[in-house]
Amino acid sequence: MVALILDGTSIARELESGLITRVENLKKKSIITHLVVILVGDDSASEIYVKNKQIMCQRIGIRSTLVNVDDDISQDELERIIDEYNDDDEVHGILVQSPLPEKIDGLKIASKILPRKDVDGFNPINLGRLVQGDIGGIIPCTPLGIIHLLEKTGVSLEGKRATVLGRSRIVGMPLSLLLAMKGVDATVTIVHSRSVGIERICSDSDILISAIGVPNFVKGEWIKEDSIIIDVGISRIEDSGKKSGYNIVGDVEKTANKIAGWITPVPGGVGPMTIIKLMENTVRCSELS
Amino acid sequence: MVALILDGTSIARELESGLITRVENLKKKSIITHLVVILVGDDSASEIYVKNKQIMCQRIGIRSTLVNVDDDISQDELERIIDEYNDDDEVHGILVQSPLPEKIDGLKIASKILPRKDVDGFNPINLGRLVQGDIGGIIPCTPLGIIHLLEKTGVSLEGKRATVLGRSRIVGMPLSLLLAMKGVDATVTIVHSRSVGIERICSDSDILISAIGVPNFVKGEWIKEDSIIIDVGISRIEDSGKKSGYNIVGDVEKTANKIAGWITPVPGGVGPMTIIKLMENTVRCSELS
Repeated sequence: MVALILDGTSIARELESGLITRVENLKKKSIITHLVVILVGDDSASEIYVKNKQIMCQRIGIRSTLVNVDDDISQDELERIIDEYNDDDEVHGILVQSPLPEKIDGLKIASKILPRKDVDGFNPINLGRLVQGDIGGIIPCTPLGIIHLLEKTGVSLEGKRATVLGRSRIVGMPLSLLLAMKGVDATVTIVHSRSVGIERICSDSDILISAIGVPNFVKGEWIKEDSIIIDVGISRIEDSGKKSGYNIVGDVEKTANKIAGWITPVPGGVGPMTIIKLMENTVRCSELS
Repeated sequence: MVALILDGTSIARELESGLITRVENLKKKSIITHLVVILVGDDSASEIYVKNKQIMCQRIGIRSTLVNVDDDISQDELERIIDEYNDDDEVHGILVQSPLPEKIDGLKIASKILPRKDVDGFNPINLGRLVQGDIGGIIPCTPLGIIHLLEKTGVSLEGKRATVLGRSRIVGMPLSLLLAMKGVDATVTIVHSRSVGIERICSDSDILISAIGVPNFVKGEWIKEDSIIIDVGISRIEDSGKKSGYNIVGDVEKTANKIAGWITPVPGGVGPMTIIKLMENTVRCSELS
């Protein structure tokens, strides 16, 4: 048996036409959906991420504005820029690309973006709604994309054991809340760097989502047969045999493919789903504006 | 072996003197710590809860005001009352007693209370900070009380398996976030009414917290030896042999006492801890005012 592939690239592509229609409908009402991306500094990985988001905006028909500021910007100045776009009725979504320079307080920045323009869903008001079991706010993109992939399997999650490796505010924590919520109804275990007996927890899991960014951390033999594996990790490891000099690998060993029932590829799994959900959040913010 | 008792009544009492001192120090700065409790309708259980909170305020030296409104109050009118106290600099904490009449939107009410006066910690801004791993906000009282009880055992929670039965926005969800947070570091499983194989999950748990309100749901034989059992449930069951006509029972069977290492009594475990943490939150809001 070989696992079925949860092909994020093609699933994301299927969602594009629906978004294009929604953006066109907004245009008929003279609303030009507009996303502002703020990039601090010139980190090359961040530049690629931002570029990919802008390319996707273009495909969907979303106007995007890149605001690239110097990495010695002050907290106040960055907040002032956010405020400017908060006040601008022609801007529907604002995101500040991570990571930020150390001297910038990222939590304060997340709080500064108006909840209704918070396309990343990182404002505590949006995150807090998840704790309340309320999905009416803006939900972070990666957890949303993962839920979409899980739904694509057609497997009911009700009562299933779901394990989330990683407890970040961006993926692990909000995803755990979503999975445990009424209507999804998985039995969720949150595992992290201090956890003990991770191997056994994984082998008990009908759904395993790894978001720790440690290459090949999850061994093939830890996987439960026929389980669903979602690999959020994406790391580079050196490979002198490759022209690029590196390989892109996930958190989960390749051998898992022979044991799992469903698995996401890396790259091409969670990554494209995150971007398409960012587009969906932007269109939603525009519709609600 | 018999479990050691986590005596919430006496642990809560130990905390009183510290709070009394803090309230007195505030008085020296002419700040009279003041809690406003809004009670909608005349539910007899709610009246008792509110009364107990007011008695505790008196013991600590906190001024309390009870605002009892009719149960046919409109959403707008209730929000208007909250706004009035939000704007009143002499009020440091506001709580609206649950349950509310069905036609009142409780989530909107929780959002209406200013985060810095939100002594229950139910405003999404305060809940969202927990998702961010930030404990600088106001944390709901029952989860705070439970963490305090767990600390009292002196057992490190790092890497331990902790299971939370129940996924409410008041107890289960915020408590799960707190337990999984950096510095507490438990491996947390969230179990609820749709979960399957609950018995086995319980028997794997070093820490078991039940907050479902189903009398004797957790059987003694499910308990792991020497584990810590926190019983949040408090239910009445008929007992014609009693003068009152009923018994107060928790979610966990009494036989657990012979297997667990630590256990909370019902009543006298989590209940008094919840009230003292409400006092602590009120004093904190007053200090931060």
